[in-house]
Amino acid sequence: MPGAEEKNVAIIGLGLLGASLGMALKQSQLHRWGWGRRSEVRNWCLEHDVIDSSAENVEDVIRQADLTVICLPIPAIIDFIKRYKQCFKPGSIVTDIGSDKGVIVSSGEAMLLPYGVHFVGSHPMAGTEKSGCQAAFPELYDNAEVFVTVTNNSCPEAVTAVESFWKQLKIAQVRRISPTVHDSLVAHTSHIEHLMALALTLAVLECDSDEEEALRYSGCATGFRDTSRIASSSPVMWREIIENNQAAVVDAARKCENIYHEIISSIENGDFDHFEQLFARGKFLRDQWMDYKKAQQEQRKK
Amino acid sequence: MPGAEEKNVAIIGLGLLGASLGMALKQSQLHRWGWGRRSEVRNWCLEHDVIDSSAENVEDVIRQADLTVICLPIPAIIDFIKRYKQCFKPGSIVTDIGSDKGVIVSSGEAMLLPYGVHFVGSHPMAGTEKSGCQAAFPELYDNAEVFVTVTNNSCPEAVTAVESFWKQLKIAQVRRISPTVHDSLVAHTSHIEHLMALALTLAVLECDSDEEEALRYSGCATGFRDTSRIASSSPVMWREIIENNQAAVVDAARKCENIYHEIISSIENGDFDHFEQLFARGKFLRDQWMDYKKAQQEQRKK
Repeated sequence: MPGAEEKNVAIIGLGLLGASLGMALKQSQLHRWGWGRRSEVRNWCLEHDVIDSSAENVEDVIRQADLTVICLPIPAIIDFIKRYKQCFKPGSIVTDIGSDKGVIVSSGEAMLLPYGVHFVGSHPMAGTEKSGCQAAFPELYDNAEVFVTVTNNSCPEAVTAVESFWKQLKIAQVRRISPTVHDSLVAHTSHIEHLMALALTLAVLECDSDEEEALRYSGCATGFRDTSRIASSSPVMWREIIENNQAAVVDAARKCENIYHEIISSIENGDFDHFEQLFARGKFLRDQWMDYKKAQQEQRKK
Repeated sequence: MPGAEEKNVAIIGLGLLGASLGMALKQSQLHRWGWGRRSEVRNWCLEHDVIDSSAENVEDVIRQADLTVICLPIPAIIDFIKRYKQCFKPGSIVTDIGSDKGVIVSSGEAMLLPYGVHFVGSHPMAGTEKSGCQAAFPELYDNAEVFVTVTNNSCPEAVTAVESFWKQLKIAQVRRISPTVHDSLVAHTSHIEHLMALALTLAVLECDSDEEEALRYSGCATGFRDTSRIASSSPVMWREIIENNQAAVVDAARKCENIYHEIISSIENGDFDHFEQLFARGKFLRDQWMDYKKAQQEQRKK
């Protein structure tokens, strides 16, 4: 049975998130196994005390792990479970760090439960625009919110064990959530932000002439810089994230599109009273949210 | 005739932009007249060496100014010129700091040219979310891009004099521009950013239930924070800015709306190859723009 007695953790994938997790777990009581496809990466992580042990064959790593954390891109998480489902230690727990939960959790549960292995999805809201183990650092997860999924198939002890695992780090909080609610939430608070930043970047910087481009370059201010920042993220990674959260993203994006359309129409129709009302409401909501976030940070410092 | 010999500058409006301008001009050879509607503000600015002189009646300030800089909200700039057009010193120059140029420049020229006063529009891209003279600081204009307008009615010497005026500050550069090109530029690089930030804020934080709101609060990450930042700006000020740049804003906003629509449709139709291509193009354009901005900053430091 899973529980507090687990001793071996296996980190699968030693990129930014996996290697940073190894670093952050250094002070824990866990023996840190780690595995990545390339031997250079495994050796680098062993030499830099990111992990305690490794092996050439991943089967030798996961068969002794009480908890396996799969730190791979979303399609690779599902492929990994599919390929090695019979190699995990029976009774052990498998979790992941993927940004979408519906697709991962349903396939993870379906593939692992027949082998007596518990799957519980995790989503630590942490990351940078960089990638690879050499970009890793032990503070990556500090103050992160971590979502842990619960479904009708979840073993309560396994969920608690995954929550306890994350609480060893200096994270802000762990929050239990259903995969569906999670995916709608991140569609609103992270995914559509990337779509809007992308639309804005293309609207501003895709120019018809060199003169127009030169002008746009000179005129771009902090408003554009900040609002478009996340358009500089990885296209492949964001394709995978959006592709695996299609329905929730389309839903949230259409809602935002309708509001954007209402704003533009109020301007086109010269209804500036309505425009000002919308702006005042937006400012009120955002200022209230910022106040809440600041108060939360203050409380954590105490 | 206007020229390098001007000695008296009048700053009309002693809010954030006007008072900061006074502070930044302290080391200049100009005698700094300043005027604000409230006597407390005028006295505060005199006491804090923001300006050298003031007067109760604004006529007494502008009639001796070689250059008048109107630092008021957009509708107030136009109202001020209308009301005091016969009080400016003949042959002197009037400029402003408004974010829209078409409306201001056409009315400024039409009202002042009959009195032998030159109007040249300025738009220093500087500001913070705060307002009022107590929020002013002498570095506000440091590294700002300043646009100076040129039209068929412009007196070349007056344009040069306004450019020289701004070059006394530690700004990045002065760029001559037609009011129409200016207004299209800021519609793209500043105004539609505010509309998108507003749409996003309303889509994310306007919730149907308390539970949904609590969840959104916990899930909001840096992507939302940065992309929505400018939605916390002043609704009244932004109503004025958008209202006075209606056509260019609608044009730029519709362009952005079409691209956003194309992005959502590619996701809805499952055409993720196209989505990834769009994302890669956006990332390429933004990274290129960031490299250019960084190189420009490096060059300035030398």
